[in-house]
Amino acid sequence: MSLNETLQEHKDTLLAALADAHHERLGELLPELRSADIAEILEEILEEDDDLPVAQALLECLPLERRANVLGYLPGEEQLEITEAMPDEALLLLLEEMGSDERTDLFKVLDEDRREALLRRMARQEREDLKRLASYEEGTAGAIMTSDYVAIPSGMTVSQAMMRVRQTAPDAETVYQLYIIDAEGRLAGTLSLRQLMVARPGAKVDDIMIKDVISMAVDAEQEEVARIVARYDLLALPVVDADERLIGIVTHDDAMDVAEEEATEDFHKGMSIGQLEDGVSRVPLWSLYRKRVTWLVLLVFANLFSGAGIAYFEDTIAAQVALVFFLPLLIGSGGNAGAQAATLMVRGMATGDVGVKDWGTLLGRELLVAGSLGLTMALAVAPIGVMRGGEAVAMVVAMSMVTIVLFGSLLGMCLPFLLDRLGWDPATASAPLVTTLIDASGVLIYFSIATAILTGV
Amino acid sequence: MSLNETLQEHKDTLLAALADAHHERLGELLPELRSADIAEILEEILEEDDDLPVAQALLECLPLERRANVLGYLPGEEQLEITEAMPDEALLLLLEEMGSDERTDLFKVLDEDRREALLRRMARQEREDLKRLASYEEGTAGAIMTSDYVAIPSGMTVSQAMMRVRQTAPDAETVYQLYIIDAEGRLAGTLSLRQLMVARPGAKVDDIMIKDVISMAVDAEQEEVARIVARYDLLALPVVDADERLIGIVTHDDAMDVAEEEATEDFHKGMSIGQLEDGVSRVPLWSLYRKRVTWLVLLVFANLFSGAGIAYFEDTIAAQVALVFFLPLLIGSGGNAGAQAATLMVRGMATGDVGVKDWGTLLGRELLVAGSLGLTMALAVAPIGVMRGGEAVAMVVAMSMVTIVLFGSLLGMCLPFLLDRLGWDPATASAPLVTTLIDASGVLIYFSIATAILTGV
Repeated sequence: MSLNETLQEHKDTLLAALADAHHERLGELLPELRSADIAEILEEILEEDDDLPVAQALLECLPLERRANVLGYLPGEEQLEITEAMPDEALLLLLEEMGSDERTDLFKVLDEDRREALLRRMARQEREDLKRLASYEEGTAGAIMTSDYVAIPSGMTVSQAMMRVRQTAPDAETVYQLYIIDAEGRLAGTLSLRQLMVARPGAKVDDIMIKDVISMAVDAEQEEVARIVARYDLLALPVVDADERLIGIVTHDDAMDVAEEEATEDFHKGMSIGQLEDGVSRVPLWSLYRKRVTWLVLLVFANLFSGAGIAYFEDTIAAQVALVFFLPLLIGSGGNAGAQAATLMVRGMATGDVGVKDWGTLLGRELLVAGSLGLTMALAVAPIGVMRGGEAVAMVVAMSMVTIVLFGSLLGMCLPFLLDRLGWDPATASAPLVTTLIDASGVLIYFSIATAILTGV
Repeated sequence: MSLNETLQEHKDTLLAALADAHHERLGELLPELRSADIAEILEEILEEDDDLPVAQALLECLPLERRANVLGYLPGEEQLEITEAMPDEALLLLLEEMGSDERTDLFKVLDEDRREALLRRMARQEREDLKRLASYEEGTAGAIMTSDYVAIPSGMTVSQAMMRVRQTAPDAETVYQLYIIDAEGRLAGTLSLRQLMVARPGAKVDDIMIKDVISMAVDAEQEEVARIVARYDLLALPVVDADERLIGIVTHDDAMDVAEEEATEDFHKGMSIGQLEDGVSRVPLWSLYRKRVTWLVLLVFANLFSGAGIAYFEDTIAAQVALVFFLPLLIGSGGNAGAQAATLMVRGMATGDVGVKDWGTLLGRELLVAGSLGLTMALAVAPIGVMRGGEAVAMVVAMSMVTIVLFGSLLGMCLPFLLDRLGWDPATASAPLVTTLIDASGVLIYFSIATAILTGV
């Protein structure tokens, strides 16, 4: 991935200043750049230019806090590359400075030996926290949460809580949502800083807090976390363990990243592409090949059913070669309508707009819409049928069109529900899978109708 | 869309309490429900049950602030239905209570006469604000921003600013990010409440504010707004007019909604479905038909090229009907590979991972990956070619597979860039469009190779 023009300019100026060892100029430039942008420039230096020393030199020009931020924005591969040559002490300082969620992500990309060495040098509490956060399974609430939240012990007054906020401000991921915990560490309620600011200083937090808190189990899917944050417009979502104890929060920005990541995954799944570990412009070619080839080859074999169908009707085809003329059109149209129906369901299920129990209603709706689509397309194709093969062929083609489009749409619509029922991801009902299934059934439908009408069987 | 189980229970209890006019019970139940959930229950009462009086009765049980919130969560159609019977005074009270962005959205769904009547009764400043916000084009930053932000005049001290925050707290959309404006109303800097809280009370905000603020032009696309909020992890993004004057902010929750909406639109576009005005389970059938039929019928005609190709090679086909056996397989495989390549580019461009100038690099990568995919699939299909038609047919099929997959992938990859160049949305490079184009070219490639090899021409 190459940089956009503004970033490219910044990069050029930075590299020139670095080359001249013009520290004053660097000191002016760097504070003006945002951490996300510096990370992107670093990424290009590491990847396109393959120049680790320059990347390291650039990173070292930043103050510690900035360096930790920038490092947090880098993808795993680049994090590993740039930290490999770093002495343990330097890396420890950086890890300490990072937010607990980013620290954990970085920690996870390091190799076993390095991790052990680092853990040994950490303070006990920090070590326990890191080990715990690193232990949650990828894709769950636990793996994206941070432990840097503001916890207010039940029983505190508003002014005590305010003092606690001021003390925690530099370290917490957000100070705008506070969590009140009881003596057992259970989540008792929540307060926004806004509510705290307008409350009477002597009041007890327990009396003004909101008791009915939306929270998430630590092993909940990250997709669900993103959905809840979006639905209730939350700044942060608290995460609790099996005993209802508060163990972390997921902030709105991380929830938004998850939503984007999950949408990308679904886009790719929709075309039978496996989950890529990085953006399409950066992922290794071999990996891109593997993620694409599996389903393509499977579908080659599935497509043999279409071939078998054709072989079965070889006599009908030999007698009326004009029928082949309409084959791609008919199976293509059925595939398109079916892929539309599948996508509408898959996306509806992902956004929570469609639930499994809406199945019956949606089937009725699809029946009407797909029937109308099939009729429209049959009308469009009928005149061409007359032109190319006469009225009988036109009738065969029109009838096949209605049947294939209707059948394809219903298949496309039902498949995501069926997959969900089987415990699979509904997004497996990809366009390639749906069109391949419709190809095979379309061939059967078309030539069956043709055989019946044209040979009068 | 039907409710999930918990909400269904809540709905049943609420309706029972309403029917018995059991106000005490309602007074206990309602505060426990979130506005987003009450809105969903209302939506179902209006749609599935078609029971406006019950919906109105339920809404009237809520305190004014709650009522305004719930109304803000309803889709436009339901907002119109439920406000139609409301007297102007009641609606005015609700509008006053709503956030400025939600007020504007509601205002826009009302009919002309109602809008005029309401505007006449509003205070001048409120009227101007509403008219201005309603004037921005849908899909731009202006149409999603709110004017309820905390503006701090340049020159204020930290303690004065803090006082301002406390005063504005009940009305502002967020008090956690403050915007410092100069005498001309231009955005001079920004401060987080967190920074303000730890600053010395006597300090000037101008001395501690961050001067280099990320802001957005009022006519910027909403997609871009969502992308910037996600990239820089913002709580809110300030929106400025052509003179750099601050006129609104877009908060993180609205940016997240936009990101979801845009992803859904791209999902649908990816299957050639037009933009739906509501979720798939709620959109009127006629509209769903129209949004799906356009491209399907266009593609019927495009598919005629495949037919024409077949007609052209009728002699080759008649001489070797076994060739038809492999037709769906070959064009299907090419279409699948091409749709994969197109989707990878379209999604990459939408998330900002792929830029137009990366085209060259990506073409090289696709050449390698698609070549390997083609070879793999040719190897998979070759033995079947031998079985069904002998070695010559196997060779034709294998060669066609490599060529069609390679050609299809490159076409699918390039199409989004080409469309973008022409000023179209790259997402127009949908799976149906790509596969239809590949169907036609695949037919030509396959039968050309077959004619050349089998007839020795």
